[in-house]
Formats: sequence, C-alpha cells, structure tokens
Amino acid sequence: MSERIVIDLNCDMGESFGPWKMGADDAVMPNITSANVACGAHAGDPRVMRRTVRAAKQHGVSVGAHPGYADLQGFGRREIQADPAEVEDSLIAQIGALAAIARAESVPLRHVKAHGALYNQAARDRRLAAAIAAAIKAFDPSLVMFGLPKSPMIEAGVEAGLRVAAEGFADRSYEPDGSLTPRSRPGAVIHDPEVVVERAVRMIRDGIVLTVTGQEIPLKIDTLCVHGDTPGAAELVKRIRAGFEAAGIQVRPF
Amino acid sequence: MSERIVIDLNCDMGESFGPWKMGADDAVMPNITSANVACGAHAGDPRVMRRTVRAAKQHGVSVGAHPGYADLQGFGRREIQADPAEVEDSLIAQIGALAAIARAESVPLRHVKAHGALYNQAARDRRLAAAIAAAIKAFDPSLVMFGLPKSPMIEAGVEAGLRVAAEGFADRSYEPDGSLTPRSRPGAVIHDPEVVVERAVRMIRDGIVLTVTGQEIPLKIDTLCVHGDTPGAAELVKRIRAGFEAAGIQVRPF
Amino acid sequence: MSERIVIDLNCDMGESFGPWKMGADDAVMPNITSANVACGAHAGDPRVMRRTVRAAKQHGVSVGAHPGYADLQGFGRREIQADPAEVEDSLIAQIGALAAIARAESVPLRHVKAHGALYNQAARDRRLAAAIAAAIKAFDPSLVMFGLPKSPMIEAGVEAGLRVAAEGFADRSYEPDGSLTPRSRPGAVIHDPEVVVERAVRMIRDGIVLTVTGQEIPLKIDTLCVHGDTPGAAELVKRIRAGFEAAGIQVRPF
Amino acid sequence: MSERIVIDLNCDMGESFGPWKMGADDAVMPNITSANVACGAHAGDPRVMRRTVRAAKQHGVSVGAHPGYADLQGFGRREIQADPAEVEDSLIAQIGALAAIARAESVPLRHVKAHGALYNQAARDRRLAAAIAAAIKAFDPSLVMFGLPKSPMIEAGVEAGLRVAAEGFADRSYEPDGSLTPRSRPGAVIHDPEVVVERAVRMIRDGIVLTVTGQEIPLKIDTLCVHGDTPGAAELVKRIRAGFEAAGIQVRPF
Repeated sequence: MSERIVIDLNCDMGESFGPWKMGADDAVMPNITSANVACGAHAGDPRVMRRTVRAAKQHGVSVGAHPGYADLQGFGRREIQADPAEVEDSLIAQIGALAAIARAESVPLRHVKAHGALYNQAARDRRLAAAIAAAIKAFDPSLVMFGLPKSPMIEAGVEAGLRVAAEGFADRSYEPDGSLTPRSRPGAVIHDPEVVVERAVRMIRDGIVLTVTGQEIPLKIDTLCVHGDTPGAAELVKRIRAGFEAAGIQVRPF
Repeated sequence: MSERIVIDLNCDMGESFGPWKMGADDAVMPNITSANVACGAHAGDPRVMRRTVRAAKQHGVSVGAHPGYADLQGFGRREIQADPAEVEDSLIAQIGALAAIARAESVPLRHVKAHGALYNQAARDRRLAAAIAAAIKAFDPSLVMFGLPKSPMIEAGVEAGLRVAAEGFADRSYEPDGSLTPRSRPGAVIHDPEVVVERAVRMIRDGIVLTVTGQEIPLKIDTLCVHGDTPGAAELVKRIRAGFEAAGIQVRPF
Repeated sequence: MSERIVIDLNCDMGESFGPWKMGADDAVMPNITSANVACGAHAGDPRVMRRTVRAAKQHGVSVGAHPGYADLQGFGRREIQADPAEVEDSLIAQIGALAAIARAESVPLRHVKAHGALYNQAARDRRLAAAIAAAIKAFDPSLVMFGLPKSPMIEAGVEAGLRVAAEGFADRSYEPDGSLTPRSRPGAVIHDPEVVVERAVRMIRDGIVLTVTGQEIPLKIDTLCVHGDTPGAAELVKRIRAGFEAAGIQVRPF
Repeated sequence: MSERIVIDLNCDMGESFGPWKMGADDAVMPNITSANVACGAHAGDPRVMRRTVRAAKQHGVSVGAHPGYADLQGFGRREIQADPAEVEDSLIAQIGALAAIARAESVPLRHVKAHGALYNQAARDRRLAAAIAAAIKAFDPSLVMFGLPKSPMIEAGVEAGLRVAAEGFADRSYEPDGSLTPRSRPGAVIHDPEVVVERAVRMIRDGIVLTVTGQEIPLKIDTLCVHGDTPGAAELVKRIRAGFEAAGIQVRPF
C-alpha cells in the first residue's frame, strides 16, 4: 500500500491594521493548515494578531509568525538596505510579540515565514537569510523556518540547525533558476484559477513547475502558499483543495 | 539581631530610539537593581532593547518590561482614551517582544512596569489597571507587577493573583491621597539632590513621605524609582545609594 | 420669487493608507460638493492624497483638509490629552502637506475640517478649538473652518476672523444640547436610510433636528456631512440628494 | 578690483523628534547661512520644525526643506527601493508641511535638499533625481534644488528648469568620480578639524578636492554642507568660517 502524498497549505493572515481590513481571513482560514500571522511591523496590530490566532485555533490551523520590515505604508514590500544584525533583533521582537499573543490564547507557535521584500532579499542574500535563522534559533530552535527551495534561506536554516520547509507558490510565476518572477514584472502573478490548480498539483504530485520561459524544472516543496488578499482568494483555495483531493494529495499541517 | 531593611532600585532604561539617545543608561545601570526596559511602543527599538538587556545582564541587574502607549512622538506621556482590551493586547505584544530579546540573551524577565500616561491612568482607573494585570497574567503569571501603592494597579495585580511591588518615587512630589503630583504642575519634580536623598531614606526607613501640602503620610514601598533622563541622574543615584548605606538600608533586586 | 435653499454636502475622503482601502470614494465623489481629504496623520498618505485631490478635481468637488491626531492605528478616533500648541503646529503641517498636493494638481484648498477625536474634543474644549482656528489663520485666513453649530469650534473660528461653516450630520444622533451622541453609545449612528434622508431634509429645510431623547431642537447648518465608510454609503448619498431634490433644496459647494 | 569669492554654508537642522534631541542647532545656527529643516519624515516633528524655523529667522538664516524617506528608526539613512512617483508625492507633502510652518512664521522657503539615503540614491539614479525635481517644480519652481555636483540631481534640476546649487562636503571623503565615499566605508568622515578647514578652503577658493585615493579633482560648488550632529560641530563651523575669513571667502546665503 503506497503512502499518500501530503502537503501543508499556508496563507499570510492577520494583515489588517487598525481600522483597515485586508484579505478574506474568515473565508480562507477553514481551508488552510498553517497561518502565517503578521506581527505588527509590515501589517497587523496586537488586536488583529489576537483575533487571528483565535480564529486559527478554532479551525485547528497551525500558527506561525510572519515578520517583515517595519514599513506599514509600503506593506513590507519595499526592499530596504537592511543591516543583518538589525533584522535579527527586529525579528526576535516580532516573533516574541506574536508568540506572546499566541500564549495568551494557549496556542503553540510552529513556524516562521519572513514577509515580502525581506523574504525576497533573503532568498538571494545569505547574510540576511542567516539573520532570519539566527533570530528563530535565538527565540526557539524548535520552530520551522519557511523559505524558497534551494535558496540561501533554506541553507541558512539548515546550517543553524533548524527544521526547514521548502515553500512553493501556486499563483506565482517562476524563473528558470527557481526564483520567483518579481511582482513588478508582467505575468508574475497567475490569475487563471484552473492554471493555478494544475500548477499546484504538478508541483506537489510530480515535483515539477513550469517556468515563465516555458521550461519544466524540478521543485520539491513541503508547504504551498496560497494568497488571501486577492479577489476570489477563498474560492481559489477551495478549488486547490478539490484538485488535491482528486489527485490523491492529502492536506495537513507541517 | 535585627533584619536589615532592603529596597529595590528601579530605573526606566532603553528609551533611546533609532539614532536618538535618551538617558544616561551606561552610568546609571551599575547603580540600580532593576531595569524597566522600554518595549518599542513609547520608546526603544529592537536594537536598543537588546543592547539594554545585555548591559543589565553584565551588571547583574534584574530585567523587566516597561510597556507604554504606542506614541513615540509623545513619548507615551499623553493620556489616551484607551480601550482596556486594546491595552491588554498591546501589553502582551510588548512584553512578549522584550521577553524574546531577553531570551536571546539568556536573561529571565522578572517584572512589568507600565510607562508614563498609561501608569498614571491605571493608577486611578481600575479597568485599565485590570487590563495591565490581565496582560501580565496571560503572558507569565510569575512576573511581578509594579504599581503605585494603594492604587487600583496594586489591587488589580493582587486580584489577578500576581505578585505586586509598591513603587515610590524619590524625586516626585506626592498629593495628600498618595497620588503623584502631575508633571504639568509646578513642583511635581524635585530637583535638589539632598532633598531627594532625604525623602528616599524616609520613605524606605520610616515608611513616610511629605506631601506637596506639607503633610506626612504613610507610604510603604517595595521598589524605589530613580530617573535616568534628568541631568545629573547618575550622580543622584549614587548619592541615593550612599544615603541608603548610611541609613543601613540594603539595595537588592526585588 | 423665493430664493432656493442651498446646502453643501461634505464627506471625509482619502482615508485609505498604503495597501489598505477605506471608504467608497469613487462612488461617493460624484455625489458630494466638498471633500475633506485626510492629511496623512490619522489616515491617508501622499499618494492617496494626490489620487483623492485628482478625483475631486475631475468631479468639480471643492477640496478641504481633514487633519487629525497622528494616530493611524486608532484612526484618530482615540481622544488624546493634547497640548493646544502641539495641535496647532501639527495642523499647520497637515494642512500645508495637503495644500501642497492640491497645488501640484492646480486645485485650490477651500476649507478645513478637524477629524474624529480632535473634532469632538474641540467641540467642547475652547483651547483646542482656538488652536485649530489659529492653525487655519496662520496658514491661510481665507479657508473656511467647519465645526459643530454653537460649539466652541464655531466661536473660535469667528473670533479668529475666519469664515465658518456649521456642520450637521444626517446619520448621527444628537443630544439635547446639540452635541453628537458619542459613537460608543448605542443609537449613535442611524442606519435606516429613510430616517437619515428625512432627518437631512428637516435639518436643512426646517432647521430642526430630533434628539436622542425625542425633543426637537433648532439646528442651523451650512454643510451636511455624509459618511463614505459605511456599507451602502454611496447609495445613501444618492438617496439624500434625491430627497433634497424633492424638497427643493439645492446642493452646491460652500 | 576683484570680486570676492562667496559661499553659502548649509547645515541639516531640526532633526530632533518628540522627546529626543539631535544636533547642536542652537550653537550652529548663528554660524550658517542656510538651514535645511527636516520635514517630519526621517526626523523632526511639527513643533521641532516651528522652533527651528523661528531660530533661523532670528539669526537671518535662509530656510529650506530637508525631506527624506519616511523612516524614523533608520533616520532616512537606509536605502529603500522607492517608486519615483511615490517619492515625488512624499516630497511634495513634506515640502508643503515645512512651507506651511515657515509661512506661519512669515519666513520664505528658499531651497530643498534631499536627505540621507534619498540624496545618495538620487545622486546616481536619474529617475529618483527627476522625481525630486518634479516635486520641487510642482510646489514652487522658484525654490533652489541642492545636489551633488555633476550628478543626476543637478542635471534633473536643470532639466526641470529649476535653479540648482552644487553642494560640497567639507568633512566627507570623495571618490575619484566625485561621489561621496559611503558612510559604511572607513575614512568616509573626516574628523580632524584642521584637515576639514583646509579642504573647505581649497574646495571653494581653488575648486579642487583631494579624493580618498589621493588625486586632486575639480569640484565647483555653490554651497558647503557642515554637519551639526557630530561632537564639536559648532566649534568646527566656527573654525571653517575663520578659515574662510583668512582666505578672503565671504559667507552669505545662496
């Protein structure tokens, strides 16, 4: 009897701020297995954090920290010439803030996924990747570090002795070297739900992704990121799950 | 053989921010026993937090969190019409951020002291005081809650089952009801070092303080706050310690 | 031949921030005559400000500044113990920032309306009201100051030699003294569109409003505030305009 | 009779924030001719802006805007991957805020000098330089744009039809191409006052600067920047002025 293929479905959550709403958290939460919760730097505030952790708990969703640059206006998507030591300290504080909120709700923290520009910079800059790994290790070495497959992030996590999870993106276009096509480039985000579902299945079942240039490249992932802030996000997540069901892929927390 | 009188000397520390310096932390740290470290809301940032925790560790000073309103420009000194639930969540996040930084330096967190306007409002508003106590309890019920003697802060801490520490201020003027004279009022801050030392000794040895109206009122305290952001702060702390020495009062962490 | 009754319809606009959207500005703009544009302190950012001014220009809507407390997370709705001189300087800077954006779009600035908690505090605190008036006068004494009828705001504006506009709220409940029922109180916001339209017409045609206690009190207003951040806001504004049409009230900029 | 050589002496001023002080503004102000006043984004707040403009007025010092990235914690010194349109709007708002404060003090605004990372990026990125020029032009085309000689900043200013002022730095080291040695590099800042004075005189009298590699390169400047946030800043400015006096160089506003 063959073992079933399993995958974790993660989504960035809790990215509202003060009076402003972001994302379809309520609709997405029941359909994911890991929530990356914003920590108040690029988005989120303590009340949003708490509400989000509570919702995750209610749906049995695993909770992780989603720290980013302290740049609300830019939503953590502007690259910043950041000193690695500064990034390390900032991430310790952000992870600690979310962990405290989670503790108040008796929810364990499971993973850390860097956000936006920090994620992208760390996917090519070993010193930043090492700073993220150092922050996680300093706070709690049992946390899983999410990162782009084969990137310095994964390497830095492994080197720090952390458990790592290679992450794939169903609705993002890939370059031949396995990096993500920058959002500023046309075609960076894939909008056709059918294509997204098909790519997700191929990625997980076959370990293969089609690049923006039309090549098939191998891509082994442990967790698949779905987005909650695009129109129809919740519907798309459901379709992805249905696609997995049909393909015999089991969705469960990392 | 009689037991010696003991007192904890606390000081607000780590209130620099980014490029801006505040206080004479380096000079004060060796002379205090508890450091209330700002958590990034009214002052402080992750790097300042880490540097401050390191300095405290080096001098064997006990570390506590010093959370306040998220109002950098007003330095947490402007009263804000705050929702208690919002305050609770904000404090959990702030305490968690500092605790994480402290953990990265293998330093245990010992106490929590609210800052500025939040402290003052909680000293007269039971719902805010309860929110502070709830935050501490949710994060770590073994932490000591600092507060104004006989105020709702102490009551709320006790009611939540926390250990509490009644706090006195050597350089602040008191009202007949035991509250502090507001900073906006003339005479609120006492500048003459000799008077400050004398008041400190009377407070701790005799349990008595002279009010702004000239009365003597009883005031039993567990920890004495000294200020690090006034000119001559470090010198004043040394004189207070010398005064304690002469009066047979032992200074040691709470 | 009798003169037609005229009224200005104003709405708080440009309260999005960074990646976060607020309000139905696009749908509301074509139906109002004055836009109160957030200045980046309680909401708004330079890009949002510019986009909003452009939209106002396109629809021939008069542009005013909508300054508030520098409290993004609280959306300027938390009362702050503010020093009047500090408020004055902050408002000069905020009005100046918006005026500069308006100048870049060749749009004149016409009025200033304080936001949220600042508006509410100034409606009962003469020193704050005077600070607002002083800021307007210092920047441009030809700007119209909006305020609650018969409140210190209007008095302070008049005393400073400014033109003032008494403002009414169609969807807010009034106290017998003509102040607004605080948002925290049940019934503070009126949700039934029919009631709102009826109140709007009575306010402008008859100069009368029904208080929360059931009394009719006189209320003479120059501009009516409609809200753009409630569900169905755009629809409600259209119904109010239709109600005015039917009642022979003409809507035009102040 | 020969014409005297003249130079403008500018200094970044008003970089305090809330409770935090920065620089020796009081001591430096009497000795400079142009003050670049921070606009609340990288430093400064409305009260600091007003206080600084007042001090400049009192000493007959010309006032300019000193806008930067909205990054208080990084003091505007961290390079940010900024969208030029975003920079343009941000600068219009910042210049407008300071101009409004200046207007409240009846002081005309004379120039604009970008701060820190924005200055450095614009000195090599034509699109950013053009965004700065566009902001100035949109707000007031009579303002003088400061920039690094021969850099895209000066070119962009000229192309926009603005008056420009080439700026030199007496205490900064230069690269052979006329750019500044990055602050992160050793030797980027020159600390020996005698060397600084000598370099200042050579720059202005002879139009020559010695690079970090030991070459002499031509450098024609209209305004010399002195720093107010280094120890001994005020003393250094006085020595520079004395050096100019001795060399027959007249110091006067641009």
